[in-house]
Amino acid sequence: MKLLLKMAVPFILMLFINISYAQLRVRAPYQIPDIPGYQTLICDFHIHTVFSDGTVWPSVRAEEAWREGLDAIAITDHIEYLPHKDDIRTNHNRSGYIAKGYGQDIYLTVIRGSEITRDMPPGHLNAIFIQDANKLDVETWQEAIAVADSQEAFIFWNHPGWRGQQKDGVARWYPEHTELLDKGMLHGIEVVNNKEYYPEAHQWCLDKNLTMLSNSDIHPPIQMHYDSPNGDTRPVTLVFAKSKDEAAIKEALFNQRTAVLWRNMLVGKEEFLKPIFNQSVQIENPSITFGMEDNKNVQITNRSDVDFELFRADTLTDITIPEKITLYSGKTVLFNVKKTKKLLRGKKVLNLPYKVQNLLVTPIKPLEINLELEIEQK
Amino acid sequence: MKLLLKMAVPFILMLFINISYAQLRVRAPYQIPDIPGYQTLICDFHIHTVFSDGTVWPSVRAEEAWREGLDAIAITDHIEYLPHKDDIRTNHNRSGYIAKGYGQDIYLTVIRGSEITRDMPPGHLNAIFIQDANKLDVETWQEAIAVADSQEAFIFWNHPGWRGQQKDGVARWYPEHTELLDKGMLHGIEVVNNKEYYPEAHQWCLDKNLTMLSNSDIHPPIQMHYDSPNGDTRPVTLVFAKSKDEAAIKEALFNQRTAVLWRNMLVGKEEFLKPIFNQSVQIENPSITFGMEDNKNVQITNRSDVDFELFRADTLTDITIPEKITLYSGKTVLFNVKKTKKLLRGKKVLNLPYKVQNLLVTPIKPLEINLELEIEQK
Amino acid sequence: MKLLLKMAVPFILMLFINISYAQLRVRAPYQIPDIPGYQTLICDFHIHTVFSDGTVWPSVRAEEAWREGLDAIAITDHIEYLPHKDDIRTNHNRSGYIAKGYGQDIYLTVIRGSEITRDMPPGHLNAIFIQDANKLDVETWQEAIAVADSQEAFIFWNHPGWRGQQKDGVARWYPEHTELLDKGMLHGIEVVNNKEYYPEAHQWCLDKNLTMLSNSDIHPPIQMHYDSPNGDTRPVTLVFAKSKDEAAIKEALFNQRTAVLWRNMLVGKEEFLKPIFNQSVQIENPSITFGMEDNKNVQITNRSDVDFELFRADTLTDITIPEKITLYSGKTVLFNVKKTKKLLRGKKVLNLPYKVQNLLVTPIKPLEINLELEIEQK
Amino acid sequence: MKLLLKMAVPFILMLFINISYAQLRVRAPYQIPDIPGYQTLICDFHIHTVFSDGTVWPSVRAEEAWREGLDAIAITDHIEYLPHKDDIRTNHNRSGYIAKGYGQDIYLTVIRGSEITRDMPPGHLNAIFIQDANKLDVETWQEAIAVADSQEAFIFWNHPGWRGQQKDGVARWYPEHTELLDKGMLHGIEVVNNKEYYPEAHQWCLDKNLTMLSNSDIHPPIQMHYDSPNGDTRPVTLVFAKSKDEAAIKEALFNQRTAVLWRNMLVGKEEFLKPIFNQSVQIENPSITFGMEDNKNVQITNRSDVDFELFRADTLTDITIPEKITLYSGKTVLFNVKKTKKLLRGKKVLNLPYKVQNLLVTPIKPLEINLELEIEQK
Repeated sequence: MKLLLKMAVPFILMLFINISYAQLRVRAPYQIPDIPGYQTLICDFHIHTVFSDGTVWPSVRAEEAWREGLDAIAITDHIEYLPHKDDIRTNHNRSGYIAKGYGQDIYLTVIRGSEITRDMPPGHLNAIFIQDANKLDVETWQEAIAVADSQEAFIFWNHPGWRGQQKDGVARWYPEHTELLDKGMLHGIEVVNNKEYYPEAHQWCLDKNLTMLSNSDIHPPIQMHYDSPNGDTRPVTLVFAKSKDEAAIKEALFNQRTAVLWRNMLVGKEEFLKPIFNQSVQIENPSITFGMEDNKNVQITNRSDVDFELFRADTLTDITIPEKITLYSGKTVLFNVKKTKKLLRGKKVLNLPYKVQNLLVTPIKPLEINLELEIEQK
Repeated sequence: MKLLLKMAVPFILMLFINISYAQLRVRAPYQIPDIPGYQTLICDFHIHTVFSDGTVWPSVRAEEAWREGLDAIAITDHIEYLPHKDDIRTNHNRSGYIAKGYGQDIYLTVIRGSEITRDMPPGHLNAIFIQDANKLDVETWQEAIAVADSQEAFIFWNHPGWRGQQKDGVARWYPEHTELLDKGMLHGIEVVNNKEYYPEAHQWCLDKNLTMLSNSDIHPPIQMHYDSPNGDTRPVTLVFAKSKDEAAIKEALFNQRTAVLWRNMLVGKEEFLKPIFNQSVQIENPSITFGMEDNKNVQITNRSDVDFELFRADTLTDITIPEKITLYSGKTVLFNVKKTKKLLRGKKVLNLPYKVQNLLVTPIKPLEINLELEIEQK
Repeated sequence: MKLLLKMAVPFILMLFINISYAQLRVRAPYQIPDIPGYQTLICDFHIHTVFSDGTVWPSVRAEEAWREGLDAIAITDHIEYLPHKDDIRTNHNRSGYIAKGYGQDIYLTVIRGSEITRDMPPGHLNAIFIQDANKLDVETWQEAIAVADSQEAFIFWNHPGWRGQQKDGVARWYPEHTELLDKGMLHGIEVVNNKEYYPEAHQWCLDKNLTMLSNSDIHPPIQMHYDSPNGDTRPVTLVFAKSKDEAAIKEALFNQRTAVLWRNMLVGKEEFLKPIFNQSVQIENPSITFGMEDNKNVQITNRSDVDFELFRADTLTDITIPEKITLYSGKTVLFNVKKTKKLLRGKKVLNLPYKVQNLLVTPIKPLEINLELEIEQK
Repeated sequence: MKLLLKMAVPFILMLFINISYAQLRVRAPYQIPDIPGYQTLICDFHIHTVFSDGTVWPSVRAEEAWREGLDAIAITDHIEYLPHKDDIRTNHNRSGYIAKGYGQDIYLTVIRGSEITRDMPPGHLNAIFIQDANKLDVETWQEAIAVADSQEAFIFWNHPGWRGQQKDGVARWYPEHTELLDKGMLHGIEVVNNKEYYPEAHQWCLDKNLTMLSNSDIHPPIQMHYDSPNGDTRPVTLVFAKSKDEAAIKEALFNQRTAVLWRNMLVGKEEFLKPIFNQSVQIENPSITFGMEDNKNVQITNRSDVDFELFRADTLTDITIPEKITLYSGKTVLFNVKKTKKLLRGKKVLNLPYKVQNLLVTPIKPLEINLELEIEQK
């Protein structure tokens, strides 16, 4: 046996060299639940390639997105900023076209778009679902947006607090934005772009009924920019759509059915965040019976990708509940509840009141939830 | 802002020091699906503590098991081997009693057992679901097993090929085992113990209708012995039971409704392994339509904890399928199928024939499965 | 070839089952440099076992420490608190004796100690390097400490702000501590215990010339308590000693040659922290030459286990340097320095002034360091 | 305090959003020691960009290499295969030029090269250290290689067993290769390319005194192709050079001072592999003294990135040593040696004979080493 082993080792080594890395491609599906009535799609609507100032070929964008578990992306190269133009022939439609073809083979929806790249105001805007990007290569931003609108594009304002255009990192609303809004030519704003969250933009979306977006604005290879294993994730827009196709995504965007997912933070209307929380979380022992002991354990499982950071919103009269509970992604957590008096009376259903600190329904208001727990005294 | 930041940093540091590690306890649930008619429970029926030759207090065994996502364990300290007896008072019931009390608080089923530790034959046997372990402290192994049986214990043979009793690591069946089997006092065998798989024991279970077990036989703290993040996992017995309580587990064990899960390998009867595979795996695009292109991609998602290693069992006439597909745990994989001729005829359902190399229904026979794929020529 | 492969796979599987996990034991050495004149030893002087209220056998403590890369530990079971005493015979010397024997075989220094466990004041105190722990089992704390002192023990105050004795988590100095100090019977204080840092204790060590300690106070298996891969590390005391043996450690402790290492934080006197920083860090290109370009990159390598968090302490006249630099453990980082004017004059050596925010020389004062960089204008 | 905390949390969140991801760039240095007389440089001499059939901009190649800890790369786009030529203007010098400029800023040596891409024989050849790649765009391979040679290029044969040109994956030597060798126009061969090792090429390098190379041939972003955290690493050529500059690398290549590093395997001449092993490994207790006990532990530390897989080459008369020892990268391992008789005689130095199975000096011969251990009987 020992001799056999010694002989076998180099042989085995050789075998594995030839077979172990077959051409399988692997995708990590997101664990964000659908909500009643809609599929939850994972999307990134702001992406660059070598055709403007990005550093990868368009096909890479589709492959990256598929591997990360995204459902749809938009390619949005700059119209006005083309640092590679001495090497790459100018055709604003090429990057979208190449990525879309690649995406079709791997069941990824690729939307064609462009970034209209102007001084602030109005700054940079993305137009997606466009037909011919070359027609956006015009002199004024007014013209460019009008052309996009005539192509029935969905138009949104990018990174409104970007330090390249706002030294202090604070987003500002200008008359030009009011003008666009009034004309129906501004449909959404990036609440998160790259590695920044803009609370002002968040509030504007709420106040002006605009679609919230969260996009990567990625230029280099995605893994070179986001240290995803350490929590520095690509921002994505959650789209609540009737199906996965392009038309359904467009319909959802025009009807403000989106939320923001970035670095373990969800931003969006309560009508979307609450069902996501509820579909993700399950109390394993929803009914607990006290005997003579003065405390009991409760177990909760969170099947989503998000760690939910719960802070107690109020105290209860019958039992003491923890001040802070983190419902870790993919885990079951156990915590202790204590009776406030020796004997409770009979059976009752309690609503444990918590704020989910990393689920924001406004810039300063976390989502409030109740965990339903039945208690009984034996 | 900058000044603020500098001042804020030590302050922030202090805050986190006090709040970041609250007393939450975290469990990692197994992702092994239930099968039709039964819950799939994750169990380990061979565990030691300081009360024999283990090195942890019994409560640790319950906490470890709960954290790892197990549903039930048995504490099985040696009756005859007590190296700590100068320091620890001898009472064979103590470790099970302590662990059981601890388990109750965290919803973990702890079964009381003992290891009857004798020379080969018959070697070491575990008796679980016993009432009074002290009564097993008798002179002969025949007496000990008779006492266990009189307490309605489930009795199984441990590590039959263990090098401590079989120098060459090969399991051997002795007349003593036939004697026990004939008396109805041998109900199962460890097919996996610690870090060894015994193919002989696997075959005996099939031939003699014995229950297959897979147990850790853990002595030190569990994380000190198994390098789980690198694939060196605790062996567990999958029990297919009508509920999670002790009686249901006992019923399932006496009726051979178990399988072995160890290091990405499943061992068991086809009636159990096939539904586990089928409940775990889903073809994302079960119907593909060919146009003029000569190949298409197929996506399959595997929601279980096991990487399924598929090897092609046969070729097909219409399409060429990959020789090897690994369905990675928790991932979607994509692979390519090629038409064998320019045009296929109409629509048909194909069964892609594969062997799942790491799911063994006998020591030499992997599970055979078919992936159903509808193809159509447009 | 293909046939060969199919046949080979189960065969290979079997081989690996038998050879892959040989009985090698693996230790992860700490990367904390020695300092001029002294070896830097990694130590933990507060550890429990099943012989008081811990949950592991003493040998486990030595094995855990060796694997984690420690050089020395003290076993310090409670004298007065013995919850397992119905099962375990009382002998306060046993746990130290067992661990010490185990440690000898693996080149780990195990020091025998005891925790004198009394109400506050004076609270809990550890006496280490004792000869006979059973003699500490006396009525008053005064007697116990006197016995320890008569055995030439090194005596330190444990977790002075522990919430079990100080509801608000704030450490308080009592007349009893002054009494001990005046008698020469208090030699050190735990500045870090378990998962808490006590700034008050840190200051007392500085003011009263006491030895700073940082200990785990571990009760369960170490990996069950500290989530080390996620930065929740065992606190350790760095001892700057003339050799690795017990006498050298004792000498260093009595002469206050220690520092605290916990969760990426170092606490200690400048005379120890500065050489640790300097021995860990190297500028890869210590001399940079500017041509016409207005900025240049600098690379720094940090060979230690600690990420150093540098914040700029001042600005320079010739170049602009980053406000914040993290020198990641085991990595080289690159950052940009910009000329403040078009042309610098000739060649000069700059000292880039930074505070290392996570290296504390007092509770409110980080270590100040200078990175030496030569610049030249060509 | 609690109120403070609640208020502080969102504030803290905001702070971190703005500061936590500053523009530091991080490099992971290789841990492969220098050898006496030479620096060990980590190099990859076969790399593509969008300028031929790669999918990243040339600057990405320099950034990727710097981050991975490489010292030098060559950009080697195809001369004859330009699938992006409708979008990208043809200029064979551009990719090398762009990458070189980017590399200079980050202290990475970028060598300009081209891949002469012809049918087998002679197949694909890389010419590196070229002056003008456009001159290689000629009709015959003979002309192309002659032009490269006239530019004093280092010329090597790529992936000789590549299945694109050899269906069975076996490298074959053709008269055309003899012709090139005789003319002094073939200087090296890729022993490893991408994810394949060619044992035939390894032997040819030994027989014909050619330089061994190991290159990635990378086309997509590097992290998309190599799953480095799971051991699927980029192959690199170790160059033993007198300095880090381009001329020193060229001199070393022309003088066959290289070795192959790929997936925990080192391939090269004994004169290079032996000092790498010896500089990496240290016995912590090189002298052991036996008393009455019959066995002792030995500790060995391996500071390199390679796990060394040692198999015993012979037995010893005085002590029994392990059959297999894995010296894990960055760890200390401990193993046991047993006396063969009750008492050894006096003091002596033993050479423990091992083969390092994953360090190949020929395709079938592992490196043989001796671990020096002094033993003494007390």
